[in-house]
Amino acid sequence: MRKLLVIGIGTGNPEHMTVQAINALNRADVVLIPRKGEAKDDLAEVRRQICARFITDARTRIVEFDLPVRDQSGEYRQGVDDWHHAIAETYADLLATHTAEDGAAAFLVWGDPSLYDSTLRIIERLERAAPFDLAIEVVPGITSIQQLCASHRIPLNRIGDPVVITTGRRLRDGFPVGADTAVVMLDGECSFRHLDVADFRIYWGAYLGTADELLIEGLLSDVADEIVARREQARAAHGWIMDTYILRRMAG
Amino acid sequence: MRKLLVIGIGTGNPEHMTVQAINALNRADVVLIPRKGEAKDDLAEVRRQICARFITDARTRIVEFDLPVRDQSGEYRQGVDDWHHAIAETYADLLATHTAEDGAAAFLVWGDPSLYDSTLRIIERLERAAPFDLAIEVVPGITSIQQLCASHRIPLNRIGDPVVITTGRRLRDGFPVGADTAVVMLDGECSFRHLDVADFRIYWGAYLGTADELLIEGLLSDVADEIVARREQARAAHGWIMDTYILRRMAG
Ligand SMILES: C[S@@+](CC[C@H](N)C(=O)[O-])C[C@H]1O[C@@H](n2cnc3c(N)ncnc32)[C@H](O)[C@@H]1O
Ligand SMILES: C[S@@+](CC[C@H](N)C(=O)[O-])C[C@H]1O[C@@H](n2cnc3c(N)ncnc32)[C@H](O)[C@@H]1O
Repeated sequence: MRKLLVIGIGTGNPEHMTVQAINALNRADVVLIPRKGEAKDDLAEVRRQICARFITDARTRIVEFDLPVRDQSGEYRQGVDDWHHAIAETYADLLATHTAEDGAAAFLVWGDPSLYDSTLRIIERLERAAPFDLAIEVVPGITSIQQLCASHRIPLNRIGDPVVITTGRRLRDGFPVGADTAVVMLDGECSFRHLDVADFRIYWGAYLGTADELLIEGLLSDVADEIVARREQARAAHGWIMDTYILRRMAG
Repeated sequence: MRKLLVIGIGTGNPEHMTVQAINALNRADVVLIPRKGEAKDDLAEVRRQICARFITDARTRIVEFDLPVRDQSGEYRQGVDDWHHAIAETYADLLATHTAEDGAAAFLVWGDPSLYDSTLRIIERLERAAPFDLAIEVVPGITSIQQLCASHRIPLNRIGDPVVITTGRRLRDGFPVGADTAVVMLDGECSFRHLDVADFRIYWGAYLGTADELLIEGLLSDVADEIVARREQARAAHGWIMDTYILRRMAG
């Protein structure tokens, strides 16, 4: 049986790697690294650094491959579905080409594989469609949410209270009901601007875990514009940005 | 200035330790480990194992201390408040006794310091009350949520959808509004029994990350009783249990 190691690598800081992740990496015969599709060279660079620093087995091969590109012209869900199908086929080819029947391949997943990432979903397809058997092993990683809290030195939840993890797109429909704390990810457009800024405190972070980390914290009414400006500036300078934030409804 | 290192150690598997956590541990002059209060010797044992395995600096001292016990007789919030106050005083004494003015002390926090843990809140009190200055550094750790997903090999969220993290106590008021996925923590009483079992799929895990890990997955209508029985059995055998689960509302 072929083994697939799905390894969470943390979010930007190579030292987010756990001992378990390092050991899993060293059990792989081949590490599969997407070259394009992310369009963010810095991210591919973190993966390369991790391999260079933590792989101790000289026989481990690193194979970079091109991810299929998503067709953004049609309906969203169908587009994602077709894209995942194409990626699953790419994975099947890579495994057939680069691993023996009892070999092991590793995928390095940004952050944790469970959080807004499709690798596990694509591998499930692959399991159903591949002409060979697969054993899947998942290794957890540090998420951007944990690094955001650590950098701001704050707890995520209020005592005993719930927390909602959501997306920028969802936030534009309003602050989630039933919770006073929300983590917002995948937000390309500072969707917090659609809220009543007087009600919230924000803890914002970009490039978390990296040397370029940016942090802004305060009443949303005070810092919303600063975040919008800072984000735009940084995105222009780097050519890309990844940011996440926590919104906390103020008591009273 | 004294340095306080608040280090997430993951949930049960010593190999959840990140390289960053290991390095932070080795920057501490003293590691402070609570002996009682958790009442769960196995948890203290994981902390000891982590120290034994990862501390490379022979001068690092390990100090075990007794946590104050929470007075559960009065009102809940006041009880927690008094308890945190008492813990902050204990911390202040420990720091005064065991660290030099420019020394560093480490606290090892189960999972990640941001998630349903009070260490950061207590340290905030300490900062306000202590007769010396403190620099706080937080190191993220793998949470039980990530290990739960990894063990079941599932994504936490459905594509683009929100997730609620909540407690057993909150779940007893009903399934959270506005999301189809909930993670339930701090649930001593299998609160999923209060839901309409026909609507959900459950992914349950106990002692996650440890050699005793238990996993059950299925339609809530099929496995609810099994989980209740298995949980009770395990709790009796170990003398304690920690479990977490994901509930996913079924489509349609
Ligand atoms: C496709 S999701 C992947 C999340 C990842 N699996 C994790 O565990 O954090 C990408 C989103 O995660 C957040 N993110 C990931 N890495 C980040 C970082 N280093 N700094 C800030 N946000 C980050 C951003 O909200 C981004 O839009
Ligand atoms: C006080 S909270 C601390 C959570 C911790 N900071 C984390 O990051 O997972 C304790 C709750 O976490 C969950 N938990 C922690 N460790 C666990 C484990 N190894 N297996 C299952 N659940 C765990 C349980 O729901 C437990 O009631």
